[in-house]
Amino acid sequence: MIALDLSADAARRALAPTGDVHDPHAARERYATAIWCHLIEPGDSAAGRIIGARGPVASLEAVLAGDELPELSAREAADGRKRWLPRLSAQAVADSLAAAAARGVTLVTRADAEWPVQLDDLGAHAPLCLWVRGDVSALRRLEASVAIVGARAASHYGDHVTRELAAELAGSGIAVVSGGAYGIDGAAHRAALRAGGLTVALLAGGADRAYPAGHTQLIDDVARHGVVVSEVACGSAPTKWRFLQRNRLIAALSTATVVVEAGWRSGSLNTAGHAAALSRPLGAVPGQITSATSAGTHRLIREYGAQCITSADDVRELLGIGGTDAATAGRGTYTGDATRVKDAMSTRVWRDTGEIARRSGMAADAVESILGLLRLDDAVQSSVDGWRLPRIGG
Amino acid sequence: MIALDLSADAARRALAPTGDVHDPHAARERYATAIWCHLIEPGDSAAGRIIGARGPVASLEAVLAGDELPELSAREAADGRKRWLPRLSAQAVADSLAAAAARGVTLVTRADAEWPVQLDDLGAHAPLCLWVRGDVSALRRLEASVAIVGARAASHYGDHVTRELAAELAGSGIAVVSGGAYGIDGAAHRAALRAGGLTVALLAGGADRAYPAGHTQLIDDVARHGVVVSEVACGSAPTKWRFLQRNRLIAALSTATVVVEAGWRSGSLNTAGHAAALSRPLGAVPGQITSATSAGTHRLIREYGAQCITSADDVRELLGIGGTDAATAGRGTYTGDATRVKDAMSTRVWRDTGEIARRSGMAADAVESILGLLRLDDAVQSSVDGWRLPRIGG
Repeated sequence: MIALDLSADAARRALAPTGDVHDPHAARERYATAIWCHLIEPGDSAAGRIIGARGPVASLEAVLAGDELPELSAREAADGRKRWLPRLSAQAVADSLAAAAARGVTLVTRADAEWPVQLDDLGAHAPLCLWVRGDVSALRRLEASVAIVGARAASHYGDHVTRELAAELAGSGIAVVSGGAYGIDGAAHRAALRAGGLTVALLAGGADRAYPAGHTQLIDDVARHGVVVSEVACGSAPTKWRFLQRNRLIAALSTATVVVEAGWRSGSLNTAGHAAALSRPLGAVPGQITSATSAGTHRLIREYGAQCITSADDVRELLGIGGTDAATAGRGTYTGDATRVKDAMSTRVWRDTGEIARRSGMAADAVESILGLLRLDDAVQSSVDGWRLPRIGG
Repeated sequence: MIALDLSADAARRALAPTGDVHDPHAARERYATAIWCHLIEPGDSAAGRIIGARGPVASLEAVLAGDELPELSAREAADGRKRWLPRLSAQAVADSLAAAAARGVTLVTRADAEWPVQLDDLGAHAPLCLWVRGDVSALRRLEASVAIVGARAASHYGDHVTRELAAELAGSGIAVVSGGAYGIDGAAHRAALRAGGLTVALLAGGADRAYPAGHTQLIDDVARHGVVVSEVACGSAPTKWRFLQRNRLIAALSTATVVVEAGWRSGSLNTAGHAAALSRPLGAVPGQITSATSAGTHRLIREYGAQCITSADDVRELLGIGGTDAATAGRGTYTGDATRVKDAMSTRVWRDTGEIARRSGMAADAVESILGLLRLDDAVQSSVDGWRLPRIGG
């Protein structure tokens, strides 16, 4: 039995820096959630299962008391305790909550109206909670959202395409979700901000700290006009594992994921894999096959069935809100007979129907009816001498 | 009843310029085939059906005699006669055969061993015969062949990619089929020739004349080292209709079709459509979405299920002769636990298992076993002070 004060009063005192929580039950749930954040790494499905079954307080109490955890196998329970308990520190939780308060980071749990329910598609791998910097209500405006992600070492082409797509989509009310990184991510956030749209940055470390440091200003801007989100507690470092797990959140939070540029082994393929695993629509922007930064997107198209994305309209189609007919407007059909008739005509010489029929290898009466139709479109000219094609410009 | 001497003697006299045909039956069949070439336009399925049913001689005699044509509806038969008979001219056939003889163009019919049987997949739309300039036996070496086609106004990128693909494929024994046009077609032929491989040019006009005129030298080179093929008689002009029909032959002759670059309404999409209609594998090379010359290839990938082609290996896979494992060799998987363990380690400081377990949020015994595995790969170092990551280069 490990001692930790989980009373409502202790919870309210602990949570005080980030705002008073009057309801004693809610205070305990929130405090226990914040503690759990310190015990587990993202995607811990054993923790997810017991918390899902008992709620954060009862599950934490059971773990601390050494109670049996029938939701888990004996091995899972023992392994879980060995993972979780060495990390238990009321001081670390207090420090983290103080950091959250200092940076205006809000805790959002499943109990809150702002909880993005699409995250529950992750099942036992869903995050326990979100730490959110910025306008929390924006989390409810992600029904139409697209993750635009890609290589940190983006090419000029990738940067350009990202800006075009993000600006057009964000400008038309579709939230642009990304990871705050250099390259494609940064370009997507910036273009969405400039277009006055909503953008969401999901960080691998705590929401209180900008990573990469060179994006401090950008991430502050995202927090001011949109939201910066993390599932790990404030003060947490962005480890490689957390980056990989953060990618699952990008995919799960967004209606669809589009990878603009990615190397053959890019981390963006991990995000794409999560999107595919969640049955979220997946798109990839093609590029030159001689470009290493497009090797990953071509791989997604070839091997993972990603849709080939060439425009913002293609992204809308991916989102299932395909409005315009632009994709079909350009389609033409070859009307074979008219082509054959025109092949047999001249812009200089007038020819009669028989002559045109002979040259085209078609029956004269068929030629006659086609000429009649073509004349309606001014595609041919007629005179007493027969028929000819109009001259361009004359 | 229209008079035309279809006797064996007349046939042998007519065919004499292109070589003596001893067998009287064969002479009549070949002469009738050459005559039919003058009466019809490519893809005439009514003609295809009666010739398929009766052979070229009997079907021509029936048409000339005004006999009933029970293979066709009354309307088809009447329309057919109206299309065909105005074109009948023994002199035109004689002139064409003389042109063929002058340019070394050989007539290849279904009765010949060189006939490429894959063309029969076109059914009633199959060509009656082929007029071939160059090594006729090459027609039998197309079991592994790829049509490489695309925009006349190719970009530098398209030209480069075409040369790389065609050289590698032709150099490895895969015949490169194309249309002899400027742009992608010309680059494909040239690269295949330079690689010492087999290349086939399918022309829309007669095989005796180079089109475009600017490719006279190139088409002569193709005829010298490979073959130049057309289904229309020597002397025939390349009309737009014949270009469209020529495209069906490119698709039908080749095992697979790859479009390297194409505008939104490019004629190459027509070739691709024929390949798809014949259930021949179809590939398209992606490019930058800002490039008009890639709009058509992206459309093929998006709308027509074309495979995204990024290398010669991808083309081999399309042909079903995917030899190498290059496509899969680069695949990596994230071994999550090892990543978490390494995240918790340092290249400078030695840490013990408990410390690594706490930092990684994993059970100590799990960490221990992973460290053991990582040590086997020299991915971690151990000492009496614990564990650390090896420094790069040291």
